[in-house]
Amino acid sequence: MHPSSSERPVILTGDRTTGPLHLGHYVGSLRNRVALQSTHQQFLLLADAQALTDNAHDPAKVSRNIVEIATDYLAVGIDSDLTTICLQSHLPALADLTLLYMNFVSVARLERNPTIKDEIQSRGFGRDIPAGFLCYPVAQAADITAFKATIVPVGDDQVPLIEQTNEIVRRINRQTGKGVLKEARALISTVGRLPGVDGKAKMSKSQGNTIPLSATADQIRDAVRRMFTDPQHVRAADPGRIEGNVVFTYLDAFDADRDAVADLKARYVRGGLGDSAVKKRLEDVLQDVIAPIRARRTALAREPDHVLAAVRRGTERAQSVTAATLRELRAALGLLSLH
Amino acid sequence: MHPSSSERPVILTGDRTTGPLHLGHYVGSLRNRVALQSTHQQFLLLADAQALTDNAHDPAKVSRNIVEIATDYLAVGIDSDLTTICLQSHLPALADLTLLYMNFVSVARLERNPTIKDEIQSRGFGRDIPAGFLCYPVAQAADITAFKATIVPVGDDQVPLIEQTNEIVRRINRQTGKGVLKEARALISTVGRLPGVDGKAKMSKSQGNTIPLSATADQIRDAVRRMFTDPQHVRAADPGRIEGNVVFTYLDAFDADRDAVADLKARYVRGGLGDSAVKKRLEDVLQDVIAPIRARRTALAREPDHVLAAVRRGTERAQSVTAATLRELRAALGLLSLH
Repeated sequence: MHPSSSERPVILTGDRTTGPLHLGHYVGSLRNRVALQSTHQQFLLLADAQALTDNAHDPAKVSRNIVEIATDYLAVGIDSDLTTICLQSHLPALADLTLLYMNFVSVARLERNPTIKDEIQSRGFGRDIPAGFLCYPVAQAADITAFKATIVPVGDDQVPLIEQTNEIVRRINRQTGKGVLKEARALISTVGRLPGVDGKAKMSKSQGNTIPLSATADQIRDAVRRMFTDPQHVRAADPGRIEGNVVFTYLDAFDADRDAVADLKARYVRGGLGDSAVKKRLEDVLQDVIAPIRARRTALAREPDHVLAAVRRGTERAQSVTAATLRELRAALGLLSLH
Repeated sequence: MHPSSSERPVILTGDRTTGPLHLGHYVGSLRNRVALQSTHQQFLLLADAQALTDNAHDPAKVSRNIVEIATDYLAVGIDSDLTTICLQSHLPALADLTLLYMNFVSVARLERNPTIKDEIQSRGFGRDIPAGFLCYPVAQAADITAFKATIVPVGDDQVPLIEQTNEIVRRINRQTGKGVLKEARALISTVGRLPGVDGKAKMSKSQGNTIPLSATADQIRDAVRRMFTDPQHVRAADPGRIEGNVVFTYLDAFDADRDAVADLKARYVRGGLGDSAVKKRLEDVLQDVIAPIRARRTALAREPDHVLAAVRRGTERAQSVTAATLRELRAALGLLSLH
C-alpha cells in the first residue's frame, strides 16, 4: 500500500468464490473498483469462507474459483499494489471476530433480516438452513469492521446487512465506551443490474445467460446473436421497443458514445432499424471491452503462481490489519491477552 | 508432553471461566483429571470464548477467572508437563473449525438439542438467545475434534453435545471419504453431583452455597456448620435421615474411611448421634482435603506469572495440535491453502 494512502477512506468489497466473474460484475462493481483504488484504501475479499455457507457440499468449486476470480481482478486492471486482494479463510481474526459478535446478536434478530429471509427462500433451504448461512451477516460484520471499512459497495438488496453491521458496532462501542469499531455506509451502485442475455433479471452461469470475462470472440458473437430484443420487432421496418431490450441495455452500459446510442434508439423506436444492425454495434463494443481483459487473462493464466503470489501478499497485509483490530477490540472489552 | 505419551488416548475437558472452582468441581472432575493425566494425553481447555456466549455483557469476569481457574488446576495437582492447559480464545483454529462446521449443521438441529433447550430455559433467554449461545455445541464439536479427543468427560446432561459432535464428524468424514475427524465418547462421571451446602441440587457461587478451593479454615468451619442435615432431627437422641442430608453426602464424597462413615450412618439412623458430632468429623475431613490445596494456591497466587507461563506453554502446544487438524481437514475437503 502506498504510504500516503493511509489517510484515505477504507473500502471493503469482494466476491464469493463460486464462479468466474462476468460482464454483470464488470458493470456492477469491477469498473468501479478500478476507479476507486487510486483514491481509497481498498480491500478486496475473496470470500471463500462465506461461499461455503451454502456450498459446503462442493468445496472444490469454492477453491477452484479463488484463482479464477483473482485472475479476473488482475485482468480488469485491479493493481495489487493499490488494492489489497486477500483470502477470507486465511484471516483467522475474521473467524474470531465472528464468534465474538455472535454473542451480541440474537437468533431472532438474524431470522428477521430481510436479505437472509429472501435468500433462504431463493435457495430453498426451508427448515434446513445451515447455521453458518443464518449467521453469515455476522461474519460479514466481522469482515467490514476488521478492516475498519467505512464504505461498503453493495446492491440495494444488501442494505440490511450494513444495518446489521452497524447495530453490532454501536452495541459493542457502547459497552466498551471506546470507538474501536467504525460504522460503515452502503455505497449503492447507481448502475442498474445488468440482465442476462436471455432477458432474465438474474445473470447466472448455471442459466447460461452470462458473458464471462474470459469469453472468446466467438462466444461474444454468439451471445449477442442470441440476445433477447423485442419479440414484436419482426421486420426491420417495424417500430421496436427499447424497454426490456437487452441489446440496448448493454449498449447503455458499455457504449461510450452516448449520442450514437441515443440516435440508434430513436431510429429503432421509429422503425427502419433491424436487430442485426444494433447487435453488430453491440458486438463490436463488447469485443473492444473484453479483448484486452481476455488478453491479460490469458497471460495471467499462464502464470497462476504470479496470481497466487499477489493473493498471498495481500492476505499477509490483511492478516496484520485484521489481527490488529481483534487485539484492539479484545483489549477494549477487557479480555485477557497472553501476549 | 512426554514423548511416550503420544500413543495414549486423548481426553479433552475443561471449564468455562466464569468463577473459581469449588469442592463440587473437585469431586466431579478435578480429582479424576489428576488421576487421568498419567495414563492419557489430557488437554484442559480454559473455555473463555464459550463463557462469553452467555456473559458477553461481563467480559471482565470471564478474563479474571482464567488465572483463577488455572491456579485451581495447578493447586489440585494438575501437572502442566503432563496435562496441556490451554486458553480457548487463543486457539484460532477452533474459531475457524467452528465456522466451517456451522455449514454442516442446520439451525433446526441446534434448536432441537435438549441440552440447549434446557439451558435456554434456565438462563431465561426467551427469544433473545444470542446466536453464539445457540451455536456453542458446534464450537464444542470444534474443540473436541481439533484435539482429536476420543474421550470427553461430561455430566449425563451433556451427552447430547457429544452426539452432536459425532454427527458432524460422520457427516464430514463421509463427504471427504477420509477419517480425519475422530468420533468421541462421553466419559460419564460415576460420582453423583455434589449438592450445595444448603441442600440445593445446584452449587453456585451466586447462591453462596459452595465451598471454594481457596476456602480458609474459618470458611470451611462456617460452611459445615450451616450445612443442611435432617430438619426433623432436632435432638441427638432422635433417629435421623441420611437421604438428602448434605453432611453425609459430603462424607461419602470425601471421607476415605468408608467403614467409619458406615458406622456413623448406622448410629445416626438409629438415634443417639447428634449433628454436631457428624459435622465435626466432616469438618476435619474437609480441612484435610483443602489445606494442601489452599497452601499451594496461596503460593501460586504469589506468582501469577508462573501460572500464566504454564497457560502460555500449554496454549502454544495446543495451537500446533489444533492448527494441524485444521490444515488436515481443509486439505481433505479440497480447500485451497496459500501456504
